[in-house]
Amino acid sequence: MTAFGGVFSVLPTPFTPGDEVDHDSLRRVIDLYLGAGVDGVTALGVTSEAARLSERERAEVLATVVSRVAGRVPVVVGATAEGTTLCLERCRAARASGGAAVMVSPPRMPKINSDAVERHFATLAQAVDLPIVVQDYPPVSGYAMETALLVRIAREIPAARTIKLEDAPTPYKTARILENTEGLELQILGGLGGVYLYEELLAGAAGAMTGFAYPEILVEVVRLFRTGKRDEAAQVFYRSVALMRFEFQEGIGMAIRKEVLRRRGAIAHAAVRSPAAPLDASTREALDRVLAWIDKTKEHSWTSA
Amino acid sequence: MTAFGGVFSVLPTPFTPGDEVDHDSLRRVIDLYLGAGVDGVTALGVTSEAARLSERERAEVLATVVSRVAGRVPVVVGATAEGTTLCLERCRAARASGGAAVMVSPPRMPKINSDAVERHFATLAQAVDLPIVVQDYPPVSGYAMETALLVRIAREIPAARTIKLEDAPTPYKTARILENTEGLELQILGGLGGVYLYEELLAGAAGAMTGFAYPEILVEVVRLFRTGKRDEAAQVFYRSVALMRFEFQEGIGMAIRKEVLRRRGAIAHAAVRSPAAPLDASTREALDRVLAWIDKTKEHSWTSA
Amino acid sequence: MTAFGGVFSVLPTPFTPGDEVDHDSLRRVIDLYLGAGVDGVTALGVTSEAARLSERERAEVLATVVSRVAGRVPVVVGATAEGTTLCLERCRAARASGGAAVMVSPPRMPKINSDAVERHFATLAQAVDLPIVVQDYPPVSGYAMETALLVRIAREIPAARTIKLEDAPTPYKTARILENTEGLELQILGGLGGVYLYEELLAGAAGAMTGFAYPEILVEVVRLFRTGKRDEAAQVFYRSVALMRFEFQEGIGMAIRKEVLRRRGAIAHAAVRSPAAPLDASTREALDRVLAWIDKTKEHSWTSA
Amino acid sequence: MTAFGGVFSVLPTPFTPGDEVDHDSLRRVIDLYLGAGVDGVTALGVTSEAARLSERERAEVLATVVSRVAGRVPVVVGATAEGTTLCLERCRAARASGGAAVMVSPPRMPKINSDAVERHFATLAQAVDLPIVVQDYPPVSGYAMETALLVRIAREIPAARTIKLEDAPTPYKTARILENTEGLELQILGGLGGVYLYEELLAGAAGAMTGFAYPEILVEVVRLFRTGKRDEAAQVFYRSVALMRFEFQEGIGMAIRKEVLRRRGAIAHAAVRSPAAPLDASTREALDRVLAWIDKTKEHSWTSA
Repeated sequence: MTAFGGVFSVLPTPFTPGDEVDHDSLRRVIDLYLGAGVDGVTALGVTSEAARLSERERAEVLATVVSRVAGRVPVVVGATAEGTTLCLERCRAARASGGAAVMVSPPRMPKINSDAVERHFATLAQAVDLPIVVQDYPPVSGYAMETALLVRIAREIPAARTIKLEDAPTPYKTARILENTEGLELQILGGLGGVYLYEELLAGAAGAMTGFAYPEILVEVVRLFRTGKRDEAAQVFYRSVALMRFEFQEGIGMAIRKEVLRRRGAIAHAAVRSPAAPLDASTREALDRVLAWIDKTKEHSWTSA
Repeated sequence: MTAFGGVFSVLPTPFTPGDEVDHDSLRRVIDLYLGAGVDGVTALGVTSEAARLSERERAEVLATVVSRVAGRVPVVVGATAEGTTLCLERCRAARASGGAAVMVSPPRMPKINSDAVERHFATLAQAVDLPIVVQDYPPVSGYAMETALLVRIAREIPAARTIKLEDAPTPYKTARILENTEGLELQILGGLGGVYLYEELLAGAAGAMTGFAYPEILVEVVRLFRTGKRDEAAQVFYRSVALMRFEFQEGIGMAIRKEVLRRRGAIAHAAVRSPAAPLDASTREALDRVLAWIDKTKEHSWTSA
Repeated sequence: MTAFGGVFSVLPTPFTPGDEVDHDSLRRVIDLYLGAGVDGVTALGVTSEAARLSERERAEVLATVVSRVAGRVPVVVGATAEGTTLCLERCRAARASGGAAVMVSPPRMPKINSDAVERHFATLAQAVDLPIVVQDYPPVSGYAMETALLVRIAREIPAARTIKLEDAPTPYKTARILENTEGLELQILGGLGGVYLYEELLAGAAGAMTGFAYPEILVEVVRLFRTGKRDEAAQVFYRSVALMRFEFQEGIGMAIRKEVLRRRGAIAHAAVRSPAAPLDASTREALDRVLAWIDKTKEHSWTSA
Repeated sequence: MTAFGGVFSVLPTPFTPGDEVDHDSLRRVIDLYLGAGVDGVTALGVTSEAARLSERERAEVLATVVSRVAGRVPVVVGATAEGTTLCLERCRAARASGGAAVMVSPPRMPKINSDAVERHFATLAQAVDLPIVVQDYPPVSGYAMETALLVRIAREIPAARTIKLEDAPTPYKTARILENTEGLELQILGGLGGVYLYEELLAGAAGAMTGFAYPEILVEVVRLFRTGKRDEAAQVFYRSVALMRFEFQEGIGMAIRKEVLRRRGAIAHAAVRSPAAPLDASTREALDRVLAWIDKTKEHSWTSA
């Protein structure tokens, strides 16, 4: 099994003004992330707007991603679905397309519970020959996986020993999980736009899996941290977290991220799919300001990495 | 535009022991509902386990339904999706397959709001030439549509003037909506397994859209009520609501309903798709008892209708 | 420790038109419930509108209840609070006033979890010398206690071996808890207005704790069931559940129950405290009809008990 | 009516190791906040752990606050309650104690809706002669007040024209509210630990009401912004938001804030009331680091204010 660590960038899905998937932009985004030195990419995640793609579009996006990445880094593929059967089908499609792992949240369903969630992951692990990244993101899944459940899954399902942990407070929960899984080869990746990356690393996280539009910052924080330069990592992080925090605003975050990627030349249009809200003037102005701060501060920092 | 009233049965999706859609059973279920005299059927609803079907399976189910119904009654087609684009695609597929209307819930999304919901329905109405049944079922959509929003949608979007109202207390909310939409050709259909059907009719509902496994009871209640026999309607309803209530248990309701349909000879296997829970011994025993009650009480009642 | 079984009636809190607690009506309600033969009463429960009472009012209500009951049956006292300290204070007040047990839900709090809930109950059990009824009612507490947690609490906290189970599907969950606690003196009481009482008894429940306004019906169902007359119990239940279901409507249920108690001569005014909604004409008409049904059907039934 | 703007600090409630309210520490916290130049303080807010205080403790806390503040700045008093009657009682107590305004969230209740919320605020406004700060914080109130509702309340209830806006994305929502209330004397205050303060100001907010443990930073950001020094305000904010973000972690935030206030010499013990989680070693270490960053960066900045 691959060990997933470092920075994995969750890829956005760019759209044309006509609301079609914009594969050219998708390729350029991949280039931007790979150029920043990320350790892997994640396709069809929550912030890829995967839930707003048809199955045909999902397949086409995945094909573009795998082809553009061309084996340079592993591709994790979002496969969350409301039923086990459909989730399995998506896992198999991910495997067939060349995915290195699948990422799965608990099925969204009233009255879901720990046992049903564990059974879901166990069934996937038995049927699909790929590592599973267990995503813990309650605002979207509707179910908070308690530490005890995550520990149980990690112990009993060897294929499911990577956790994308996005249930706040994530540094605290990371520490709780790790102190209960000593001896296991378990990896916890932060998410949440990188907003707690440094604290997650301190707590023992192996890296981050998120779509932050300046992946080079995440890469430098993780690189510095891993080479023992904790103070330098902290400096880079504290200076730049103003942007991560701004980008990761609930309800408008994906629109902001796409606008940043547009300004960076990666995607042609910043459109998000309806009913998600587009950017307004006030958010644009605030974005101008925080990007100016990042531009200024980065001179003596991560570009030199 | 068709006026939707009376009883519309939401069709379950039967599965084989091998977890495939069981089209033979689906045809028999349709026969059972049509034989009971329902005014229409609904395919791909929440209790059809539509969220656990692949797009291919959805298309196949729809084809079977339309073909078996063969124009005898209208077919309403569930088309809810998380994004407007995907929802539109499903609406168009419903239209192309011969559906008489689509049924749509608000897109499930953190930070959704009234304006986004109204825009969603307006976009659908503009692009698809079919009536829209607005489904108000917060436990699944994650969003409670307040009376004022439902009234606004009804006023401004003529294609969306049928509401499947499943936000308790439904009789109370039915009365509130109707007193604010006088003069509009608006139809409210109850759901919730028929558990409040009589009170919904009293409050002005036009009928019910639900998958209750004894549709003949719903049909008789509505028929008696509409022909002015309110006392007789009440009698039939009060005697039989013990079963509706039992069948409509959150978390286990679909498994119970399928078991009833199996016992009635309509479907071959009562399986629900994972991670939904299967029936346990205790629920089976309770079902035996309430079905015995229904058998006994119906002798002097709805079979004579 | 007392064994809590049979029917415990949760007492409403009647109000005067001037929005004061109406202690005369409260005494008459107690008389009505005791006259119906209930095994105990519960003060300051959710449907007592306890959350809308001041601490002074809580104390006065409790004094009236204990004084009127006068030791004839045990009084269970709701003591749920958001913090452990405040909950403890309420438990001690209950003990000092002569309560026979306290009833406690998990503290409502974002990010609550199993361990915190168990610790909460353990702290209470250590400090207060009264049995604890563990209330599992997620719509109000905001936290669904999974079967495994309820089992753990029952095993490890001997004082907390009565569960008021109101997390649907309750018969199913009752069976799951009991099959995991064999050998323990554990009692499960149904709630939810009695809507699933018969099925809960079949699954092993020891009775019901709810405020249904016709307690004599619950008493007869439980009496018949316990004396082995399961078919007769079923008959009484199935005939009368139309009313339980109607009374227990989310959002309007307390207003309906108070109106029934007013019509039965127990309370002077049916007012509920704002912002709860008062009864509307449509609900009143529906209530007339279902009460007429109960009047008619009870002739050959529970009055003869 | 007072115009509420600038920085209002929500006061924590310090506890002794014996779980009593520590009034000495409370007085020192007030001194710290007033010494930082805040424009007002807020007692009995959510992060004051007001929901975990008894009514007696609430009264005592309020007395200490009013007495220590001694009229130097206005005291806003949290008065949220589940029922209108109890909320009114709290508003009157606030008035009697010398509070300058009350702060109120929608009553937490299943099936609450816009009309009931508006009625609640209208009733308070009629009966209490104090300005009302409308708190919009869905994770705690359980109800998201849409922009349209906040606008309606502001238009129709002159006493309720200050909003403590904590429903993300707050800068976006601030802009939406203001563009729909032109001509009204409406004030929006940010909250959320100050994490979006600068963007909220850009969008038109009048200041912040939050308990961030370095109030001098908030004060300087607002002062610079209001005097037209937007770039300098941005610099101070972007450098220090790393701490605000860290402090404002859901589930552990109050424990962090109290620890910071302890280190600053204001409170004797950092205890939070159970069942809230205490600080763990991992969070302490992360706190050390971010405080070191703040110490270093502040040299050439807000101390010079």
